[in-house]
Amino acid sequence: MACGHFYAAQAGGDEAFTVDASRVTFGRGCLAEVGDRVASHGTRRVGLFTDRRIRQLAIFETVSASLRKAGLDVVVFDDVRVEPTDGSFREAVRFANEAKLDGYVSLGGGSVIDTCKAANLYSSHPAEFDDYVNAPVGAGRAVPGALKPHLACPTTSGTGSEVTGIAIFDYVSLHAKTGIASVMLRPTEALVDPDCTDSLPSEVVAASGMDVLCHALESYTARPFVSRAKPGRPTARPMSQGANPWSDLGCREALRLLGKYLRRAVEDATDREAREQTMWAATLAGIAFGNAGVHVPHAMAYAVAGNVKTFRPSGYPQDEPIVPHGMAVVVNAPSVFRFTAPRNPARHLEAAALLGRDVSGTSSADAGEVLGKTLSTLMQKTHIPNGIGGVGYGDADLQALAEGTFLQQRLLQNAPAEITKPVLVDLFRGAMTYW
Amino acid sequence: MACGHFYAAQAGGDEAFTVDASRVTFGRGCLAEVGDRVASHGTRRVGLFTDRRIRQLAIFETVSASLRKAGLDVVVFDDVRVEPTDGSFREAVRFANEAKLDGYVSLGGGSVIDTCKAANLYSSHPAEFDDYVNAPVGAGRAVPGALKPHLACPTTSGTGSEVTGIAIFDYVSLHAKTGIASVMLRPTEALVDPDCTDSLPSEVVAASGMDVLCHALESYTARPFVSRAKPGRPTARPMSQGANPWSDLGCREALRLLGKYLRRAVEDATDREAREQTMWAATLAGIAFGNAGVHVPHAMAYAVAGNVKTFRPSGYPQDEPIVPHGMAVVVNAPSVFRFTAPRNPARHLEAAALLGRDVSGTSSADAGEVLGKTLSTLMQKTHIPNGIGGVGYGDADLQALAEGTFLQQRLLQNAPAEITKPVLVDLFRGAMTYW
Ligand SMILES: NC(=O)c1ccc[n+]([C@@H]2O[C@H](COP(=O)([O-])OP(=O)(O)OC[C@H]3O[C@@H](n4cnc5c(N)ncnc54)[C@H](O)[C@@H]3O)[C@@H](O)[C@H]2O)c1
Ligand SMILES: NC(=O)c1ccc[n+]([C@@H]2O[C@H](COP(=O)([O-])OP(=O)(O)OC[C@H]3O[C@@H](n4cnc5c(N)ncnc54)[C@H](O)[C@@H]3O)[C@@H](O)[C@H]2O)c1
Ligand SMILES: [Fe+2]
Ligand SMILES: [Fe+2]
Repeated sequence: MACGHFYAAQAGGDEAFTVDASRVTFGRGCLAEVGDRVASHGTRRVGLFTDRRIRQLAIFETVSASLRKAGLDVVVFDDVRVEPTDGSFREAVRFANEAKLDGYVSLGGGSVIDTCKAANLYSSHPAEFDDYVNAPVGAGRAVPGALKPHLACPTTSGTGSEVTGIAIFDYVSLHAKTGIASVMLRPTEALVDPDCTDSLPSEVVAASGMDVLCHALESYTARPFVSRAKPGRPTARPMSQGANPWSDLGCREALRLLGKYLRRAVEDATDREAREQTMWAATLAGIAFGNAGVHVPHAMAYAVAGNVKTFRPSGYPQDEPIVPHGMAVVVNAPSVFRFTAPRNPARHLEAAALLGRDVSGTSSADAGEVLGKTLSTLMQKTHIPNGIGGVGYGDADLQALAEGTFLQQRLLQNAPAEITKPVLVDLFRGAMTYW
Repeated sequence: MACGHFYAAQAGGDEAFTVDASRVTFGRGCLAEVGDRVASHGTRRVGLFTDRRIRQLAIFETVSASLRKAGLDVVVFDDVRVEPTDGSFREAVRFANEAKLDGYVSLGGGSVIDTCKAANLYSSHPAEFDDYVNAPVGAGRAVPGALKPHLACPTTSGTGSEVTGIAIFDYVSLHAKTGIASVMLRPTEALVDPDCTDSLPSEVVAASGMDVLCHALESYTARPFVSRAKPGRPTARPMSQGANPWSDLGCREALRLLGKYLRRAVEDATDREAREQTMWAATLAGIAFGNAGVHVPHAMAYAVAGNVKTFRPSGYPQDEPIVPHGMAVVVNAPSVFRFTAPRNPARHLEAAALLGRDVSGTSSADAGEVLGKTLSTLMQKTHIPNGIGGVGYGDADLQALAEGTFLQQRLLQNAPAEITKPVLVDLFRGAMTYW
């Protein structure tokens, strides 16, 4: 609580915050712990979720061998789609229902972990697909109870999905990304092994690292929890409750680590310290945003990714056009933080400083410019596309992007300022190109 | 990981750390959330544990009313002993067995929360009393499975027991404090309401605040997790695993907050900001030490408290002599940190700085003196007794205190240096008087 009054009580606002995280094991080699840990939860027949690329890697063998050594019955699902869709989620649910699992392990990036959450959810508590999907796209029905044990092993550095209660997918017929959010979706344990990052393409380190950076920065600059209306009943307090003193700790440390290590992690796959620290930053940022919530750059990303035309980034599967999540988020970030900075210049400047910028003598009025420049410089150095123009959008798309974003009210409400459609058009225009 | 090499791999040492915490709700007024939260765990008949003094306070009414409003059947146990014993634990177990509870709420300081953990443990998994007690005093048997839901509401700022898997008691016939340690003992949720501190006597704020300070300082200076031998199986990794990057975050923030607010919280019961921030520091330090472990000052405290003769501090019940836990710990601290500083002068100096000391230009060689002086000054200003002499010990007691402490091998093994009996005699001699 660097600045005490940021969390001062507000009339009608919430007066408490509620925070939670999965049990986390972190360290090189810890993937080999997965069998013992799964067995300790009473699981006997475990579904091992992954994607086709990861199934070819040594880490898949490590996990699979550890599970078998613990005497578990293992069924593999490797049909996860990178950037999952409602269709690919449904396919995973069908698999889980048929396989009669009593526990889950996910080994992969956010795409795999999120797919596994959905499979666990719908097979533990069957329902129509739209029932649990966030309103207004779906019915936003509450998950009725606990799911089966799920041990999440992230292989990117990375979404933080291993510690959040969120699963994101592309609702294809609606051209929009949306998700499911419930504390029940939070994995039971996370096993975070930096050895996984050895095989990560540099492009994936860059994109997923920018996702981490935005988790931390958006949570840190989200509206304070005291400005959200008090919930009707305490257990209805949302996970995306706004900035709070607990999340602030994880945000600051993640930003500091990314400022020091992200460029090194992207540039050199053999820089073990940098890749390890970037992975730790990802988990910390996940714990933070899982209890605070992201806002405008993520809301805009859902439209940027959902309307993709022909963009096919190297380092990712080439079968279909995609804008990888972290890229779709960070291309909006400099434009957004220039706009939000006046709401809390101190926090925006502190973020720039944590990312490694010398801000001594910078005036509050320049906080937005300075943070925007810090971000765009880091984007350039890590070979991220130059704004939304760099992933294929032009002036003719501004209105459609703003419309798609405006649907993401859950995220926009978590912003520190009011976000109207005209504001969104301006923000996208400001995000067209940065250098 | 301010200093990367502190956590560099060591031959034969552990390579990962495992961290965990209870779901935490923090904020003024949050005690009123307890009914809705208890009900959400499926509990119908709840045991409400407290002590006689707290039962007279308005906060007891708040909790009791919230539980009844949620339609719960409430049975009250107010026979908790301040600084509990094996006898008082057994009495609580008897009560729980007879009352046939399916959930627990504790409202009180560490004495109440720890007693409730024991009642929940032995009535959920019946066993001989010594079975679960830490070896070598007891058999150190593993807790076989989950306990009933337990919502812990701390009323001191404070032990952090609301987020740890530890329960401490005085084994009267052995003249030694010992405890029970298992992740299963960790409360399901913690409800941390700073309103509770309004009625706290200044002496309790001082003693329990010093407990918090030592949780943070001992966890921060504990041996790094990489220096502990790798466990035979992953799920056997102890909670007291040594310093790690996760605990470091909570330690640093707790020290910073205490440096800023502890004196104010002791001096002025109406300083709401100071009392609130001290309470938040207590929870953060609990999360940190619950995943790292304390070391020598706590080990020594068990002998200091267990051998008490006639000391009866104001602010505490006067029926029997006691050295309150936080006091029993901090009287050893300056002496211990003078001794451990050479093992990691940078961390000891950083701690002094976080506590508010200007350390610019201080040489590494002076780290112990500077941190020791920072602590003894804060003790003096908060009216803590002047060393172990101040709580009734003299030179004739040194040997017995060292013997009693040497039994606490679980804690001594977590120290950054080897602790022999002669070292303990020296440490107690150095703790006799500070000003
Ligand atoms: N649930 C949440 O809290 C949350 C948060 C942020 C993002 N997300 C979602 O997560 C998804 C993105 O996840 P991501 O960024 O982790 O990437 P990803 O899972 O989509 O994987 C990206 C690519 O990297 C490959 N890959 C992954 N690990 C590898 C490794 N160790 N070595 C070699 N290749 C590897 C994958 O096969 C894939 O081709 C998006 O759908 C996004 O919306 C979820
Ligand atoms: N389990 C753990 O992780 C852990 C950690 C540290 C200490 N401990 C144990 O906790 C115990 C000490 O707990 P503590 O320091 O919280 O104190 P406490 O529970 O012993 O209470 C101290 C005194 O303050 C009174 N009190 C408590 N809250 C009050 C309030 N809000 N208003 C007025 N009076 C109030 C109590 O009635 C009691 O008289 C010791 O037994 C210690 O060994 C446990
Ligand atoms: Fe994200
Ligand atoms: Fe303590």
